[in-house]
Amino acid sequence: MSSIKILVTNDDGIYAPGIFALAQAMQSLGEVNVVAPLAEKSAVGHAITVSDPLRVTEIERNEKFFGYAVNGTPADCVKIAVRCILDSMPDIVVSGINQGSNTATNVIYSGTVSAAAEGAIVGIPSIAVSLTSFSYKDFSYAGKVARQIASQVLEKGLPPRTLLNVNVPALPEDEIGDVLPAKQGRGRYEEVFDKRTDPQNRTYYWMAGKRMILDKENDVDDVIVMQNKVAVTPIQYDLTHHEFMKELQKWKLKP
Amino acid sequence: MSSIKILVTNDDGIYAPGIFALAQAMQSLGEVNVVAPLAEKSAVGHAITVSDPLRVTEIERNEKFFGYAVNGTPADCVKIAVRCILDSMPDIVVSGINQGSNTATNVIYSGTVSAAAEGAIVGIPSIAVSLTSFSYKDFSYAGKVARQIASQVLEKGLPPRTLLNVNVPALPEDEIGDVLPAKQGRGRYEEVFDKRTDPQNRTYYWMAGKRMILDKENDVDDVIVMQNKVAVTPIQYDLTHHEFMKELQKWKLKP
Repeated sequence: MSSIKILVTNDDGIYAPGIFALAQAMQSLGEVNVVAPLAEKSAVGHAITVSDPLRVTEIERNEKFFGYAVNGTPADCVKIAVRCILDSMPDIVVSGINQGSNTATNVIYSGTVSAAAEGAIVGIPSIAVSLTSFSYKDFSYAGKVARQIASQVLEKGLPPRTLLNVNVPALPEDEIGDVLPAKQGRGRYEEVFDKRTDPQNRTYYWMAGKRMILDKENDVDDVIVMQNKVAVTPIQYDLTHHEFMKELQKWKLKP
Repeated sequence: MSSIKILVTNDDGIYAPGIFALAQAMQSLGEVNVVAPLAEKSAVGHAITVSDPLRVTEIERNEKFFGYAVNGTPADCVKIAVRCILDSMPDIVVSGINQGSNTATNVIYSGTVSAAAEGAIVGIPSIAVSLTSFSYKDFSYAGKVARQIASQVLEKGLPPRTLLNVNVPALPEDEIGDVLPAKQGRGRYEEVFDKRTDPQNRTYYWMAGKRMILDKENDVDDVIVMQNKVAVTPIQYDLTHHEFMKELQKWKLKP
């Protein structure tokens, strides 16, 4: 019997279809432990909850115990799972399967990626998996990809403080091409605020926007996904702009 | 008359003392526009609000118009300021003055830094400024440092998608040493969850933790601050682990 311990989490919430598919896909690799937000937590970035108490609730799905829900963010879930819920450190954290792509600049807004980042920070090899559509509901191939990459991570390991960010096109398996290492793109949303008036005649705004893809190179996440292939981006959290350090030495920084 | 336009924001909320000190410090550089969260939004990471409507309120401080409050996150404030509130793009975004340090791994949880990151993503040179204490209330030297660095940024510019993350020791001016370029450290919090029982006999947890400083090199943000100097870290948002790409090419990624 396998002694591999897998922590499964997400940002769409513990009742989302994607986390159910992911937990099932991981079952043949080891012992699956689900700890996920009670409510949907998309676009929360790397938020943590320090000003409110956290509560943990046992959740059933299909009349069986499924996992633990936390009234917090994806990053909270990983922290509390490791410190309070699991009896030992997991061997791997797998976050997803998210609905909607987490490529390019979206990586920094993504709750799905932040859960995997939290795993990486704590020292656990971690993966984030996204299906690049909000409406496509067939998680079967994304689950297979998640399982394959998780088994490779368990076999080969990852560098310290590194996670793999996987984006799977929202297409049937036979229309999807290769699974390729990718660079994070520079594309972002061009925000548009939709200004409206409520029944009390007060102004409010909805944030929306259209996706701008700024990259053309074949090894960039968005470009790989547009070619109906799976993008696997290694992500690390040293944000220092090392080349600019030399220039900054010349500045007059002291007032 | 100066035509420089400065956007001032924060994550401690529009009524915090730090943003008032920052707005005052910036006044001699150009036209100051304050757009900040209505409520305190610490540790929100790079969250954006897509599921709730945003509202904008005019706020007075000391019986004078001070700025616009938004019922959202620091990143929301920068987005809505640029698209809906200001009549032209600001020349610089300055976020702070935060109470509490934003060094090392804290950078990725920081709302203060995320506001500056949002500025950098939109293409505006940006600075985040933090005072490394939750209780120290003298923002005068941090304000001078912010003004000096902002004037250097306006003169020399920053590389694309780059911000400067400034951490000022919580000490009187005459006890603070040099202002130095810095690398982001690897220190993180070792979380401790304080488990309690509420009056209804239900369990809840407070997240707390103690700071672990993992770095010793003299050019690392936490080390510079511990030496009573100001750390100025250039931050960029390409998270790709470029060196690991070659290794990943050898993996069997396709299921």
